[in-house]
Amino acid sequence: MSIPETMRALVQLHDGYSGTQEGPAIDTVAPYLELREIPVPQPAAGQVLIKVDLAAVNPSDLHFIKGEYGQPRIKDCPAGFEGVGTVVAGDSPFMGQRVSFFATHSGTWADYAMTEAQGLVPCRPDLAAADAAGQIVNPLTAMAMFDIVRESGADSFILNAAGSQLGKLLIGLGRDYGIAPIAVVRRAEQADLLREHGAAEVLITSDEDMMANAAPILRERKPRILLDAVGDQATADLFFAMPNRARWVNYGKLSTTPPQLTQMGQLIFQQKVIEGFWLTRWMKDTAPQKLGAVIAEVQERFVSGKWQTDVAAIVPLADVMQSLPAATKVVDGKVFIKP
Amino acid sequence: MSIPETMRALVQLHDGYSGTQEGPAIDTVAPYLELREIPVPQPAAGQVLIKVDLAAVNPSDLHFIKGEYGQPRIKDCPAGFEGVGTVVAGDSPFMGQRVSFFATHSGTWADYAMTEAQGLVPCRPDLAAADAAGQIVNPLTAMAMFDIVRESGADSFILNAAGSQLGKLLIGLGRDYGIAPIAVVRRAEQADLLREHGAAEVLITSDEDMMANAAPILRERKPRILLDAVGDQATADLFFAMPNRARWVNYGKLSTTPPQLTQMGQLIFQQKVIEGFWLTRWMKDTAPQKLGAVIAEVQERFVSGKWQTDVAAIVPLADVMQSLPAATKVVDGKVFIKP
Repeated sequence: MSIPETMRALVQLHDGYSGTQEGPAIDTVAPYLELREIPVPQPAAGQVLIKVDLAAVNPSDLHFIKGEYGQPRIKDCPAGFEGVGTVVAGDSPFMGQRVSFFATHSGTWADYAMTEAQGLVPCRPDLAAADAAGQIVNPLTAMAMFDIVRESGADSFILNAAGSQLGKLLIGLGRDYGIAPIAVVRRAEQADLLREHGAAEVLITSDEDMMANAAPILRERKPRILLDAVGDQATADLFFAMPNRARWVNYGKLSTTPPQLTQMGQLIFQQKVIEGFWLTRWMKDTAPQKLGAVIAEVQERFVSGKWQTDVAAIVPLADVMQSLPAATKVVDGKVFIKP
Repeated sequence: MSIPETMRALVQLHDGYSGTQEGPAIDTVAPYLELREIPVPQPAAGQVLIKVDLAAVNPSDLHFIKGEYGQPRIKDCPAGFEGVGTVVAGDSPFMGQRVSFFATHSGTWADYAMTEAQGLVPCRPDLAAADAAGQIVNPLTAMAMFDIVRESGADSFILNAAGSQLGKLLIGLGRDYGIAPIAVVRRAEQADLLREHGAAEVLITSDEDMMANAAPILRERKPRILLDAVGDQATADLFFAMPNRARWVNYGKLSTTPPQLTQMGQLIFQQKVIEGFWLTRWMKDTAPQKLGAVIAEVQERFVSGKWQTDVAAIVPLADVMQSLPAATKVVDGKVFIKP
């Protein structure tokens, strides 16, 4: 396969962090990205070049381009963490094969991307393109955090932003493993759909009686783990209403306001803990064998239909500057970028 | 030793919790306690009766009588968690001996107290009365939390309310084990005294430049553990200025305002954790052999002068209703009650 000298890429306009905490919503990408023709990157030892077939748009990507994510931006470097494509250069046993990957050296929102050779995830032939393009960030986060739920020993767990793609993956895991998901969402319209997916209970944060509705559910089901992508006061209130030894596991910050710790004594007397989860850390800390088994289960779940990827839009790379903000406003699905 | 039928005791006027979160300061004890003549309690199987020689007044006692502690009050039952005295009844190998104890069945602010036979701590003859009366709550909390500091592997740790009795015990441990204490206090006047005790750095929360002063200290010393008895915004700000993998270990709530989590992303990207420490839980979870070794070290530290108990006042039991609030206002020392 001949590789051209230049490619189209959405490159970042800024270095480092912005210092803002606005969350993953965007109304325009112009302050952060620019579509440019740039040289195709050259893989160094241990790296591979991948021709991108389809790239994912995750909340973490939007946090990242805005300078609010846990690693610094690199000016003039293409954005996009995740995608699927074909290995076209570098030192890899998967040369010419279809792989999912997390881009570490040159982002996926481009014709070509670059990553570590050892981080490639070969795809089953029967895995659909959208499932393959998004099989790392959300599915591995869901699997890893569901391990925390299983280790808690409780028959139930709480998740908020439950209507998100990640939320639906977690609900599916709870349904299939018999650990009742208590789904927290903003809008009542989402409740029926989440119950269909397998939510045992649905709590609506826009409901004034939310905490009163939650009380009997928490008493009866005794969840220990709160998987939190929001980080607002409603989440804190829910945490403080949970039973002894509850753990508030934060993995995202959709809210832009800081929650207050109104019941700190519970950390002392009820052994409650507030902590975070970051997939990047989990992948570093997880043995390759375990990682391989988890990835095999992820692909099996997609192919068998236990999980499904709801596609909100597939935006051509050339249209991203104009069309991405509107596409990300679709609540019930995931956005992809097609080079 | 003949045991009378009745005794003087400071009994509680309320059951359960108050729902307030005012902290351990008191201006009067009249809403909570009453000095009464009540029957001397009768030990059941596994319990012992102790003639109280000297009882301690800890912040947890004040939280407790106000209904703000982690266990419910019992109306008409004597207050007071900790003390030293002589075993006078019940089934114990320590009959007639001097023991320190944590009262579980009838409090120490009385002529007689009652506790579990297996919870007695025999005292070395050379251990002073004030050291013996307060050898459980503060010293064991200090030893247990300093274990967390040692396990962190850092060369430094942060403690606030550093001028408290517990703070001084922690500073002494840091000094003796070569882990630099960074002491946080409210008033600049306390700084010299804390440096004398062994504080490597002193931060003053009333200083407007506190965070600016803290920055180079945190960069250089890289503390991982923040031992927190205050729970205010200054504590949260300090936590968010600490390096990766910092743990905010809350064990008290001197502040009456809830802190805000202004940098939740640090829980995710910097693996920071917020948790609590409760001595009662630690004692339940700690093997008796380890507990014995820790208690032996506590007594050795007091007798050898590595630790000392600063006595603010010894209030006669008959004068507590009138004199206790003023005595607890003395900043630099501990209050005891003498039956």
